[in-house]
Amino acid sequence: MAIADKPQYNVIGTRPIRHDGVDKVTGRAMYGADFRMAGLLHGVIVRSPYAHARIKRIDTAKAAALPGVRAVVTSDDLPQHGARQVDLGEGAVSMRHLAANVLTDDKVLYRGHAVAAVAADNVHIAEEAARLVKVEYEPLPPVLDVRAAMQPDAPILNDDVRTVFAGAPEVNADQPTNIAKHLLFEKGNPQEGFAGADLVFEREFDTTMVHQGYIEPHNATALWNADGKVTVWMSTQGSFTAREQTAELLRLPVSSVKVVPMEIGGGFGGKISVYLPPVAALLSRKSGRPVKVIMSRADVFEATGPTPGSHIRLKLGVTKDGKLNAAEAWVAFEAGAYPGSPVGMACMCVFACYDIPHARVEGFDVCVNKPRTNAYRAPGSTQVAFAIETVVDEICTELGVDPVELRLRNASRKGTQRVDGPTFARIGMEETVEAIKASSHYMSLAPQSRSPDKQCGRGVASGFWFNAGLKSSVTATVNADGTVSLIEGSTDIGGTRTSIAMQLAETLGITAEDVHPTVADTEGIGYTDVTGGSRVTFSTGIAAVRAAEDICSILADRAAALWDVPADQTKYENGGVTGPDGKRISFKELAGKLHLVGGPVTGSGISGEESQSGAFGTHCVDVEVDTETGKVQILRYTIAQDAGTAIHPSYVEGQMQGGVVQGIGWALNEEYWYDEQGMRNATFLDYRMPTCYDVPMIETIIVEVPASNHPYGVRGVGEVPICPPPAAIANAIYQATGVRMRQLPMSPPRLLAELLKS
Amino acid sequence: MAIADKPQYNVIGTRPIRHDGVDKVTGRAMYGADFRMAGLLHGVIVRSPYAHARIKRIDTAKAAALPGVRAVVTSDDLPQHGARQVDLGEGAVSMRHLAANVLTDDKVLYRGHAVAAVAADNVHIAEEAARLVKVEYEPLPPVLDVRAAMQPDAPILNDDVRTVFAGAPEVNADQPTNIAKHLLFEKGNPQEGFAGADLVFEREFDTTMVHQGYIEPHNATALWNADGKVTVWMSTQGSFTAREQTAELLRLPVSSVKVVPMEIGGGFGGKISVYLPPVAALLSRKSGRPVKVIMSRADVFEATGPTPGSHIRLKLGVTKDGKLNAAEAWVAFEAGAYPGSPVGMACMCVFACYDIPHARVEGFDVCVNKPRTNAYRAPGSTQVAFAIETVVDEICTELGVDPVELRLRNASRKGTQRVDGPTFARIGMEETVEAIKASSHYMSLAPQSRSPDKQCGRGVASGFWFNAGLKSSVTATVNADGTVSLIEGSTDIGGTRTSIAMQLAETLGITAEDVHPTVADTEGIGYTDVTGGSRVTFSTGIAAVRAAEDICSILADRAAALWDVPADQTKYENGGVTGPDGKRISFKELAGKLHLVGGPVTGSGISGEESQSGAFGTHCVDVEVDTETGKVQILRYTIAQDAGTAIHPSYVEGQMQGGVVQGIGWALNEEYWYDEQGMRNATFLDYRMPTCYDVPMIETIIVEVPASNHPYGVRGVGEVPICPPPAAIANAIYQATGVRMRQLPMSPPRLLAELLKS
Repeated sequence: MAIADKPQYNVIGTRPIRHDGVDKVTGRAMYGADFRMAGLLHGVIVRSPYAHARIKRIDTAKAAALPGVRAVVTSDDLPQHGARQVDLGEGAVSMRHLAANVLTDDKVLYRGHAVAAVAADNVHIAEEAARLVKVEYEPLPPVLDVRAAMQPDAPILNDDVRTVFAGAPEVNADQPTNIAKHLLFEKGNPQEGFAGADLVFEREFDTTMVHQGYIEPHNATALWNADGKVTVWMSTQGSFTAREQTAELLRLPVSSVKVVPMEIGGGFGGKISVYLPPVAALLSRKSGRPVKVIMSRADVFEATGPTPGSHIRLKLGVTKDGKLNAAEAWVAFEAGAYPGSPVGMACMCVFACYDIPHARVEGFDVCVNKPRTNAYRAPGSTQVAFAIETVVDEICTELGVDPVELRLRNASRKGTQRVDGPTFARIGMEETVEAIKASSHYMSLAPQSRSPDKQCGRGVASGFWFNAGLKSSVTATVNADGTVSLIEGSTDIGGTRTSIAMQLAETLGITAEDVHPTVADTEGIGYTDVTGGSRVTFSTGIAAVRAAEDICSILADRAAALWDVPADQTKYENGGVTGPDGKRISFKELAGKLHLVGGPVTGSGISGEESQSGAFGTHCVDVEVDTETGKVQILRYTIAQDAGTAIHPSYVEGQMQGGVVQGIGWALNEEYWYDEQGMRNATFLDYRMPTCYDVPMIETIIVEVPASNHPYGVRGVGEVPICPPPAAIANAIYQATGVRMRQLPMSPPRLLAELLKS
Repeated sequence: MAIADKPQYNVIGTRPIRHDGVDKVTGRAMYGADFRMAGLLHGVIVRSPYAHARIKRIDTAKAAALPGVRAVVTSDDLPQHGARQVDLGEGAVSMRHLAANVLTDDKVLYRGHAVAAVAADNVHIAEEAARLVKVEYEPLPPVLDVRAAMQPDAPILNDDVRTVFAGAPEVNADQPTNIAKHLLFEKGNPQEGFAGADLVFEREFDTTMVHQGYIEPHNATALWNADGKVTVWMSTQGSFTAREQTAELLRLPVSSVKVVPMEIGGGFGGKISVYLPPVAALLSRKSGRPVKVIMSRADVFEATGPTPGSHIRLKLGVTKDGKLNAAEAWVAFEAGAYPGSPVGMACMCVFACYDIPHARVEGFDVCVNKPRTNAYRAPGSTQVAFAIETVVDEICTELGVDPVELRLRNASRKGTQRVDGPTFARIGMEETVEAIKASSHYMSLAPQSRSPDKQCGRGVASGFWFNAGLKSSVTATVNADGTVSLIEGSTDIGGTRTSIAMQLAETLGITAEDVHPTVADTEGIGYTDVTGGSRVTFSTGIAAVRAAEDICSILADRAAALWDVPADQTKYENGGVTGPDGKRISFKELAGKLHLVGGPVTGSGISGEESQSGAFGTHCVDVEVDTETGKVQILRYTIAQDAGTAIHPSYVEGQMQGGVVQGIGWALNEEYWYDEQGMRNATFLDYRMPTCYDVPMIETIIVEVPASNHPYGVRGVGEVPICPPPAAIANAIYQATGVRMRQLPMSPPRLLAELLKS
C-alpha cells in the first residue's frame, strides 16, 4: 500500500533470496558455539543462588586444585572501576555497575549474578569445578516490586545510587536509593487541559519482566594473546560496542580488543550488553589458552537483560467530540540490579501516536533484585502502549466512537510535537489507521461467539517507535566479473546483508545477486554501531548508498580515461557510464576493463548525522476467549505499518509478523515468576513463548510513506510491531467478555480470575 | 649506507617488532594445515609414476566403493578448456595447459602429474583409496634435456604447442614442437660491436632444476556450498590470482569463488599457481562436504613448480681498456611439462648490470618431461647471472683488472638502455659496487689457504632484478583510541604487514605500533596482485600512503567542523591538524572526537600505474675448497644492495640474507636428480638445502638510492639477492683453484671431477 508516488525502482521492492539464506538452512552458517580452535578450554560461570546477599568469602582453592582446571577468576582479577558514567552503545551507565554485573565484588543482587568463573579442559570438569568454588553468603532481604523498591524503607541494592532528576534537585539527594532516575517531560498545560476535557479516565497498569527469548544463548570465546591483544568470537548485535565494553572493562585500549561477530541466533536488544567476553578473556589470560563460555538457557533467563516489569498510572482527558485534550503518565520501570531501564524511551513513546495539546509524563528508573534489564524490541514502548491504547479504547466505548475513527481524529502528523520536545517530520500514523480501516479484516464482520463459553471480540491498537540513526561504515569493491563485494560492520540478524546489498545494487544499477555482502570484524571495517533501534536498513543503507555513489564517481572517471575524453564529460547513470557522442559502457563491461584504466576500485561511505522520523503501526485482532479456562485464542491478526519504503517486502513482513508474535507472547503468556528464590520458570517449557500452533498467519499491510532523510525513504521496521499487540488483544478481550485487563500477561489464570469476578 | 640526502623520517628506517611476530613465535598463527571445520573430509591426489605416458583407462570403481570414501574425481569432472591464452597472475598461459596440470586428461607429462583425486573421512582411507584407483598407462619415451627436447625428432609433449616467435614467423610453424616460445632482443649492432672488441669470450653454461623449498607444503581446503559459491582456505602468495585461477578452471565467475589466505610458510614464487583448490572444490561438490588436501614433501618436489634448468651460450666482447663493447646470449629454459618458463625475464636481465652498446639475446621456452616450472625469486635472473658474471670475471683475470673496477667502468646507470628496450631511471648499480669496494670485507686481505688441500679464494658478482609494480588496494579506518586498522590484500610472507603499516604510520605521523594490519580475504578488500616480484612494500606501500592521505584530508575537514572554521583553513601535518589562530589537534585527540563530528573515518588507496626502476646488488664471497673432496666452505659473505629506502632495515637485511643463502644452495648443492623414473631425491634429506651449519652470518650493506616513483623512495628488495651468489662463488672457486665452473650446482662430485681434470 503505497501512499505517495513511489519512484520506479529496479531492485528495491523486489524479493531476492537473502545472501546468507543457503548457509543458514543448510547448517553451514558458523555460530559462536560452532567456533573451535586448538587448545580450547571451556569456561563455566559460578552464579549466585540468592536474590540479594553479601559475599563474605570466596574460596577457589578446591576448584583450582581439580585436575583439568586451568584457571579460576573472581572480581579480584577484573580491574577496579569507579562511578564514571560511560555510554558504550546502550545509554550512560556507571562503569562500576557494568563491571559488577559481569563479575560482582561485595554483593550479589539477583539470583544468577556472576560471582566467579572457571576454565577447564572440558565443560564437565568446568562444571564440577564451579560447584567446588565455595562462596560464603550473608543473605539480605530482597526487594522485587518496583513500587516497594521506591519506598524510603526499602532494602537498598546499590550504596552508590542517587536519584538523578532532570529538573529541580531531589530531596534526600545524598541518601542511597533504589530510584536511579526521575524524568519529567511536559507540554502545554496539563492542568488546564484536563479542566477543558469532558471526560477524564485514570487507570493503573502492571506489566511483568519479559525475556527476548532469542533461540541462541549468549556465547563468547576469548583469546588473550601473548602480544597483549584480546580476540573475542561471539554472538553480538554490535561488534564495535562489544569491543568498547570489553576493552573498558579490561582497561585496554579499544584497538587491543578485536571482536569477530559470529552469526547470531536472535538478539532483540538483549545481545548488546557484554556478559561473557571479559570473563572469558580473564580466564584466557590466566590459562594462556583460548576459553569458550556458553550460557545455559537458565543462565540466559536469570542473568541476562530482559525487559523491565512496570507500574504505570495513566490519565487521559477527552472532549465529547472525541478529541484527546490532556494526558498524564506516571511510569515506574524495574531497572533490575543496576540502573539503566528504558523508562526514558517509554516516556518519549507513551503519547507519541496522538496529537494531544497538553501532556505530562514522569518516569522512574528503579533498582530491584532481578537481573539488570536491557533493551527488548522498541524498549519501553510496549509497556506504555498497553496503557494508553487500552484507555483510548475505553474512551471509544464510552463515547461510542469507532476506535479507528477516534485514532484518525487524534493521530499525530507532520508538525505534531512530542511530549519530550521533538516535532514530527512526515510520518505515517494516519495512513496505518486508514490501512486498517480499509483492510478486509476490519471490513469483515466481527467474529461471532461459537458457544456461551467461547466469547469472541475484535480489538484495535496503535504503536510508535522513534527508530535510531547512529553510525555505520561501508566499503565496497568492484570485481572483474561485474559484481561488487560489500563490506559492512552491521551484524545481520534479520536479513540486513540483503537489505543493504539491495540499496547498493539499486544505486549502481546492478542486481542484488551481483552484490556479495560480508559482515567484517572490528578490524575489517570502520566503526559501526549496534544492530538495533531499527537502524541498520536505514543508516547502514545510507552508508552503502554513499559507497555506491563513490564507486559511480570513480567509474565515470575511469570511463573517461578509457575513452580518452575529459572527466567532466562522463556521467554514471542507469547502471553504466555515458559520455560524449552517445558513448555508453555498462557497469559489468567497465568492471572487466578496470585493470586497464587505473586498477582496483573501492568505494566507501559512512552515516551518522541522520536521524529517523519514526515509525507507526496499527493492528487489528480477533480473539476467542474460553471463559471456562481464561485461555485466549488469536483468530485473526492484521498489522498495518509504515515502512517508509520497503526495501525487501518479505523481510519487512517478517519483521512485522515476528514483532506481533512476540507481542502476543507478552500479552498472553510470558512472564518471569520471580520470588525471593529467584526466577521459578527459567526454561522454555515453563516460560511459555508462542509457537506456530498458537498463532494464525499474521496478515500484513505495508504502508509506504517515504521518510524524507533517507535517499530511498526507508524507515526502520523491526521494533514498532511489538508495541500494539497487548493492547489490541486486551481491547478484543473486552469486546468479547466485558472485562478490562490492566495487567500483563493476560494469562489463563489471571484472565479467569477477572472473568470470575465480573 | 645512504647515498642521497635522506629525508628525516620518524617511522621509516626504524625496526619495530613485526605485527604478526608474536602469533608466529607462539604458534598461534593459523596456517592452512591448521584449518578445520565440521564435516571435513581429507583428499589425496593420485599421481603418475611415469615421466611420460598415455592414459588408456582410469578405473575408479574400487576406490569409490571403499567404505569412508565420499568422492572420486578425474579430469572428466573438470570443465573442458581450450587453447585460450589467459594471464592469471603469472604470465599468459593456455587454459588447457593450466587445467591439464591440475588434473590431466589423455597424457601424463611428468612423474607426479595429477591424474585423479579421492576424498574420504580421514587421510588414511583417502590414501588407501588413492592406491585403489587403477590407471592403465602406455609409457612413452620422455625427453629430459632442454637441448634434446629442441631437436626435430624429440618426443613431443603437447600436440597443441607451436613456436611463438617475437619477430618473423618460424619455419615449420604448423608442426607440433617442444619449443613454445622463441624470443629475440637486440640493441645496437652486435656484429660491429664484436668487430670492435679486442677480446671475445664465448662460453657455455648449464644449470639444473632447483626448487624453492618453502617449508610449508601446498594446502587447500575447499567448500563448494549449496548456493554454488566456492570458498577456499589456502596457503597462497596471491589470494586474488588464486581466486581467478580457481574460478577460470571451474568456469565460475570470479565472485563465486572466495579465497581466504591463511598464513604462509614461504612461497618464493612457487605459491602463485594453483594446484589443489580446483581439485578440492570438485571433491567438495561431489561429496557436499568441505575437503582438505595437503601435499606431501615428495608431492611438492615432484608436482609443483621449481625453477627451470637451462642451457646458456654467452659471448662477450671487451676492449683492451676493459670496456664491454658487445654481448650475445642464447638462453634455453626447461619449461617443464607445459610452456611458461621465465626465459623472457632471463633475457631482460642477462646484460642489465652493464652499459653495453651492442647486444643481442635469444631465448627459448622448451617443454621437457619434468614438472611445469614456475617463478622462483628473481625468476630466470640467477641462471643468466651465473653466465654473465663468470665471463666478466674471466675478462678481469685476462685483463688483470680488479673485478670491482671493471664493474664500475661498465655499470648501468640512469639513461642506460636495456637490451629489451627500456631505459633506466635513477638506479644504484654503481653504488652497490662502490659499497663492496669500501667494505671491510673487500678491503681485508684475501683468505689464505690453510694447507695444500684447502684452497681459498675471493669472488665478486653483481645481479639485477627489475621488480614489479602491479595493483594493490588498501583501506584503513580510524579507531577511537587513536590507532588505525589497516586492511590489505597482500599476503604477508616476509613482514609486509609491518612494512606497509610503517608507511601508513609515517604518512599519518603516528607510530607503527598504532597501526593494526589485517590481511583480508578476497571479499574483504579490493583487488590486489600477488605477493611477488618484490612489489608489495613498493606498490601496496603506495596504496597505503594514499589511504593515509585520504584520512589526512578527511581529518582536516573534521577538525574544521570541530573548530567551526572553513575547511580550507585547516591542514593535516606532522601527526595532527593545524588551523587558524594557532589551533592544533593531534591525530590521537581528534580520533577520540570523531563520533562528535561526522562519525567514522575510512580512507582508501590503490596503486597500479607505477613501475619500479629496478634493484641491483653486488656480492663478495670468500671460500675454502677442499681439493680432496670438492666440498666448498663459505668463509665470509658480504652483500651490498640498493633498497632505495629501507622501510624496516631488519627485514631488508633478512631478505638479503635469505636470498644469499638460497643462492648458495643453488651454487653448491641443490639440483633435481631426474631420469626416466622421475625425481630421485624428492626429500629434504636428499635434496640438500643449506642450513645454518653451512653458512656464516651473511654481512649486509643496505645502499639507499631512493627510487623516484615511490613517495618514500622504496625499491623492492626480496629477489635480487639470490642472483649473484652462484657466480660469486664460482669466481671465488676459480681464485682458489684455477678451475672455472660452468655448471650448477658446483657440488663436491662435480667440482672434484673438474679439479681432477685440471
